[in-house]
Amino acid sequence: MSIAYVNGRYVDKAWASVSIEDRGYQFSDGVYEVIAVHNGALIDGDGHFERLFRSLGGLNISIPWSEKILRIVMGEVIRRNRLRNGSIYLQITRGAATRNHAFPQLGTRPSLVVTATASRGLSGATPRGVGVITVPENRWGRPDIKSVSLLPNVLAKEEAVRAGCFEAWFINDAGDVTEGSSSNCWIVDEAGKVITRPLGQDILGGITRARVMELARNNNIRIEERVFSREEAVGAAEAFVTSTTAAVMPVVAIDGERIGDGEPGPVTTRLWTLYREYLEDVSHGGE
Amino acid sequence: MSIAYVNGRYVDKAWASVSIEDRGYQFSDGVYEVIAVHNGALIDGDGHFERLFRSLGGLNISIPWSEKILRIVMGEVIRRNRLRNGSIYLQITRGAATRNHAFPQLGTRPSLVVTATASRGLSGATPRGVGVITVPENRWGRPDIKSVSLLPNVLAKEEAVRAGCFEAWFINDAGDVTEGSSSNCWIVDEAGKVITRPLGQDILGGITRARVMELARNNNIRIEERVFSREEAVGAAEAFVTSTTAAVMPVVAIDGERIGDGEPGPVTTRLWTLYREYLEDVSHGGE
Repeated sequence: MSIAYVNGRYVDKAWASVSIEDRGYQFSDGVYEVIAVHNGALIDGDGHFERLFRSLGGLNISIPWSEKILRIVMGEVIRRNRLRNGSIYLQITRGAATRNHAFPQLGTRPSLVVTATASRGLSGATPRGVGVITVPENRWGRPDIKSVSLLPNVLAKEEAVRAGCFEAWFINDAGDVTEGSSSNCWIVDEAGKVITRPLGQDILGGITRARVMELARNNNIRIEERVFSREEAVGAAEAFVTSTTAAVMPVVAIDGERIGDGEPGPVTTRLWTLYREYLEDVSHGGE
Repeated sequence: MSIAYVNGRYVDKAWASVSIEDRGYQFSDGVYEVIAVHNGALIDGDGHFERLFRSLGGLNISIPWSEKILRIVMGEVIRRNRLRNGSIYLQITRGAATRNHAFPQLGTRPSLVVTATASRGLSGATPRGVGVITVPENRWGRPDIKSVSLLPNVLAKEEAVRAGCFEAWFINDAGDVTEGSSSNCWIVDEAGKVITRPLGQDILGGITRARVMELARNNNIRIEERVFSREEAVGAAEAFVTSTTAAVMPVVAIDGERIGDGEPGPVTTRLWTLYREYLEDVSHGGE
C-alpha cells in the first residue's frame, strides 16, 4: 500500500481523492515539484523549495504552510512508505471553490497532495542513451512556472513514446530548442563545450540543470548558456537531457539522426558520473 | 444540496471527489463543456456534443459512453437538482493512472463528472454593458480544443476582475484580438456590420457564437468573419462578447476607452433580443 498525504491526512493512495471543484481539476490552477530521494535523503531540496515558492508567487497562490512544515510532511511520507530510492511528488493548487475562472474569495484553502514513488535509483552502469523527437513549441507563455497546465507536454511525450523515443524537444518559431516535455536539453560541441539554453520565461529552470552546471564548473568542463537551434543539435558531438527522474540521460539520436557516433559521448558520461557521485556524497551525509 | 454525477454515482457535490492521480488533476488532461439550461431544456445540445467529441478526438481520448448515455446522465442531473435555469458542466478526463506524462495503458477508464448550477436565467432587461481589458495572448497552441488547461485564462480573467472589468481579450503578436478568457469577441462597424474572428486552431468555436451568427443571417444583419485588431476594436461603433453563460453581453469600454457612446448599441441589443427569443422558442418546445 502506498501512502499519500492529502489535505491534512495520510491515506491509502488508491483511495486518495480531491474535490471535483478543486481548481487543479477544473482549471489546472496549481503547481508541483518532483524531488528525488536517494538513500532516503531528499536531493536538492533547497532548490526545489525555492522554485516551488517562485511558482506559487507566479500564480499568486498564498499557502498557509512554511517550507519547514512541507518538509515535515514530505519526511513523513518518505517514512510511511519506507522510501529509500525514488521520488516525492508534491502538488499545491489554489483549492476547491465554486467554478469561476477568477480567483475564489480570500480564505479559500489551497490543496496539498504529497505522494511517493519508489524506483531502482541510479544503477551502476551508464545509461545506453535514448532517442528524442522534435515538435513545435506550443505551450503557454510561462513554462518557467512549474504548473500542472501540462497538456501540451503530455501530447508531446506521447508522440515521442509512439515514435519509440524517450523525449520530445520543443522547437520554437525561430527553429531553436527550448525544452523537453519533462527535461532540459543540452548539447556538447566538437571542442567538448557544454551548451544549454539560458533561463527565461520560456523554459523551466531545472534543479538538475543547475546542479549539473555547478558540477561542470567545479570540474573544469566548459559551459555556455546560449540559444541553440535544432540544426545545431542534430550536428552536435553529443547531446543529453537532465531532469529529476532521468538525472543525466545521453541522447544518441534526434528525429532519427544519429548524434556523434550514436553512443553516449565522453562529456555526457563524465557529467553522469559526477552527478552520480554527487548523489552518493549528499545522501550519505543525509540532508 | 447540489447533486453531482461522478464516475457512475450521483453524490452530494460538497463531497464529490476524484482520484489525486486523475490525469485531469495532474496534467490538465481532459475536456469540458458548459451547456445552458433554459426552462428546463438543454440549449444547443447538438452543437455542444459535436464540439465535445471533437475535443476528445483532439486529445485522443476514447470514451465508453455514447452521446445518448451522456444526455441521460445530464437529464438525471437536471432532474435531481430540479434545475430550471442555469447550466450543466460536464468534464471528461483521460482517467486515473500512475503519474507519467505519456498516455496510460489501454483500458484506463476516462473520468466523467457532471454538475448543475442554477442561475437567474436571462432577465427581461438588456444588460447594461461591461468593460474589458486586453492582455497578451499566451495560451497554448490549441485553444480550439476545449480542454481544462485553463491556467492562462484564469490569470487573464483575474486581471480583468481586478481592473473592475468583466472579461479580458487576448491580443496576439500581430496586435489582433483572438478571444476572451471565456468568451468570443465581436465588434460592429459604423455601417452596422458585425465582425468576428474566423474559426481556426487559435480560438474556441463558441456554440453561442455559431447561434448568434445564424440568428444574424436569418435577420438580415450583415456578418463578416475576419481578423480585427485591438485598435479597430477600440474605434468600433459597438462591441460585445458571446458565451454560454453570458449569452450576448454588450462591451462598452475596452482598456478604459469608451466604445461608441458608452452604452449598448442597437445592433448588439438586437442580437441580444434575437438570442433571448431563440431561447424562449427552443425551450418551450423542449429539446
